[in-house]
Amino acid sequence: MNTESVLARIDADFEASLSRLFDLVKIPSISTDPAFSGEVRRAAEWCRAELAAIGFEASVRPTPGHPMVVAHWTGKVEREGPHVLFYGHYDVQPVDPLSLWETPPFEPRIAEKPDGTRMIVGRGAADDKGQLLTFLEAARATVAETGALPCRVTVLLEGEEESGSPSLAGFLDANRAELARDLALVCDTNMWNPSTPAITATLRGLVGEEVVVQCADRDLHSGLFGGPAANPIRILARILAGLHDDAGRVTLPGFYDGVADLPADVAAQWNALGLTAESFLGPVGLSTPAGEKGRSVLEQVWARPTCEFNGIVGGYTGEGFKTVLPARASAKVSFRLVVGQDPARIRDGFRAYVRSCLPPDAKVEFHPHGGSPGLALSFDSPALARAREALTAEWGKPAVLIGGGGSIPVVGNFKRQLGMESLMIGFGLDDDRIHSPNEKYDVTSYHKGIRSWARVLDSLARA
Amino acid sequence: MNTESVLARIDADFEASLSRLFDLVKIPSISTDPAFSGEVRRAAEWCRAELAAIGFEASVRPTPGHPMVVAHWTGKVEREGPHVLFYGHYDVQPVDPLSLWETPPFEPRIAEKPDGTRMIVGRGAADDKGQLLTFLEAARATVAETGALPCRVTVLLEGEEESGSPSLAGFLDANRAELARDLALVCDTNMWNPSTPAITATLRGLVGEEVVVQCADRDLHSGLFGGPAANPIRILARILAGLHDDAGRVTLPGFYDGVADLPADVAAQWNALGLTAESFLGPVGLSTPAGEKGRSVLEQVWARPTCEFNGIVGGYTGEGFKTVLPARASAKVSFRLVVGQDPARIRDGFRAYVRSCLPPDAKVEFHPHGGSPGLALSFDSPALARAREALTAEWGKPAVLIGGGGSIPVVGNFKRQLGMESLMIGFGLDDDRIHSPNEKYDVTSYHKGIRSWARVLDSLARA
Repeated sequence: MNTESVLARIDADFEASLSRLFDLVKIPSISTDPAFSGEVRRAAEWCRAELAAIGFEASVRPTPGHPMVVAHWTGKVEREGPHVLFYGHYDVQPVDPLSLWETPPFEPRIAEKPDGTRMIVGRGAADDKGQLLTFLEAARATVAETGALPCRVTVLLEGEEESGSPSLAGFLDANRAELARDLALVCDTNMWNPSTPAITATLRGLVGEEVVVQCADRDLHSGLFGGPAANPIRILARILAGLHDDAGRVTLPGFYDGVADLPADVAAQWNALGLTAESFLGPVGLSTPAGEKGRSVLEQVWARPTCEFNGIVGGYTGEGFKTVLPARASAKVSFRLVVGQDPARIRDGFRAYVRSCLPPDAKVEFHPHGGSPGLALSFDSPALARAREALTAEWGKPAVLIGGGGSIPVVGNFKRQLGMESLMIGFGLDDDRIHSPNEKYDVTSYHKGIRSWARVLDSLARA
Repeated sequence: MNTESVLARIDADFEASLSRLFDLVKIPSISTDPAFSGEVRRAAEWCRAELAAIGFEASVRPTPGHPMVVAHWTGKVEREGPHVLFYGHYDVQPVDPLSLWETPPFEPRIAEKPDGTRMIVGRGAADDKGQLLTFLEAARATVAETGALPCRVTVLLEGEEESGSPSLAGFLDANRAELARDLALVCDTNMWNPSTPAITATLRGLVGEEVVVQCADRDLHSGLFGGPAANPIRILARILAGLHDDAGRVTLPGFYDGVADLPADVAAQWNALGLTAESFLGPVGLSTPAGEKGRSVLEQVWARPTCEFNGIVGGYTGEGFKTVLPARASAKVSFRLVVGQDPARIRDGFRAYVRSCLPPDAKVEFHPHGGSPGLALSFDSPALARAREALTAEWGKPAVLIGGGGSIPVVGNFKRQLGMESLMIGFGLDDDRIHSPNEKYDVTSYHKGIRSWARVLDSLARA
């Protein structure tokens, strides 16, 4: 394939690529909230139609939850090469707190940073609508310019990634023959910095639990019952406060079983990246690492398990004051896991700990969420080397191998269920505010991301 | 005055009295929520009109917040007697969680308990709309039957009691000549049980604080930042968890300074009431006193200070899960105080403790609420003896002197600002669910409450 002509077409057609990303961001496909299920469906249909327009045989496929989009390239290929499965997700996170958005989350716009950098602002602009379109737009330009793709390609787009992927495992099992390919390409990760591309080599897993503590069978007046009546907020606070020791370590018995210390050579490579607590935390208004004492920021976020509190609510939370003793209080707790930790054991250990904290009159309910182990990918595949070459060519700097703090459960599913390794390449940046108000995706991430995939696909076909 | 004929008229007119209570409950006068300020005003106007209809010179009087209703009886009186000031409040608590109401909170209805007891259900049916109308309806019947009131009466109805009475002190100071009377009558308390009337002799005070902990300047993704980023829910949980020791005592330095142990004779009287943990807590689904170990339930609720958590919120609290590290989390904390504790000192001590808990990168804001000391009333006034006689006559059982767990700040204001003692007589019951969904007021409380006030007024006039 004539790479230069494909890249030139990407550049020439970039305004149309941007317009398509805007169209997709405009669809409020919030998967965790049942009120938006029609919109999630609409986003799936939109993706199917675009894949069909490129030339894929594309279909929207039912699941017990939100649908999958599956597409097969049945046209001409330049080489036999590997058969790749591209994965992305078309659903997005909720938008609350809505009041902190500068413009409506589903009305995308181009904004400029003070340094002149242009960015696309909107929920899902980065995670994962912008990222998944980098691949689709690369495929579109390649087909338009060459009439073919460099190698065989299947596309799988999920609609439940932001709500724990409840249908993914069943769908992979039921469609193994259609989806088990030589290699997965997953576009849901970040670059090292705005000018340095990265391939993510380790990922943390996730175990989530919603804990509901119930005491009285109704809300009580704190004047009439304050003192004798058990208070679920007090009990919940004790439970949460007991989960970390003063050194920032998680106190659950056996929590660190199987967790290896970082190999010296990897630690040296990460240290060489020159990241400081200040450079990592400063941009979000923080300065001091709050994780395990004695470990670097990168180690805390890439290589160490954590326990985090993602939400808490109980009693009166409106304006003013209400002297109520609430009947119940709840918290959303999650654990980020690394290779060697068993999600089921962590969940069981957490539940046993919570139950051990309950005084008389307190009852607890658990609502599980997620449950994926940490992952570390093999570094010796030729595909990895080819992809690095292609990224290095596009960005003019060597692509770095990094860790990922967030879980991407699908990578674990691909490995466990389909025996397939994943190359995690993405063009997000640390300041993209994914999951937060005013999420954005740099125009450069999108543009050079499209160019990168055109190069990576061509390069992989030669592997 | 011919007491029997007044009581007979109360009985004959009771359906009209009920209808008036329904009219008042229908007005959603939630004082803490600015969205309802028009409705609060409407409730004030309703009270003024009813007082005028009885024959009072009544006016709605502006304050910096919600208005006061002030009414003077300028008609005939049977005796010079004492000049009494009746106090009640026409505002109500918020209604959340709305989903737990069996019928809409502002559509009052008569319901029956399994034992056939009839009750009026609706927000404010007891606290304090039903209670304040017991007095107004007693006055109405007395005037209608005798053309006079037994003694001189002034009425003060507040519209901010449920939101900390921010305008009360200023209003009392500005209208001292009009409001400083011989004795205050306050109707915002309970009976001992459904057949035994009570006069409340001690009251706990209240200090409230909303604590807001802020860490990062935005919500963060727990995958990208989990570990190094400070988590405000974790910090807040530690703060709250540190406020009680394992014996249920509040840990703030000096918290119990000035708190006297219960005198032996009072303890003996309270023990004689025969209340058990089971009888007190069982009706709300609890069984085990959660307050200071080694103290009786009545002591915990009437004579001991506490620290309670009335609300907490932070991060994602909607359906499903969101792996966010929130920027902020907040809690509403309140202290019930007894005689001898200084509200300002307790507040300062709490703030100092919270600040001492903050790790680097955490900031805190405080929003104060309330600030009233505990109170104990003098037992030797002739008015108290007269009121007990009248209550005993109505109910056929000796009225008991009890403690109150909730604060009624106005009683402190009357004492401090106007040098006036208060007789706290009310007809609420422990199962009235005030401040909770499905609040109710027994029809008997309302009916015999009206009869009680007719007797008490007549009896006080002879003091």
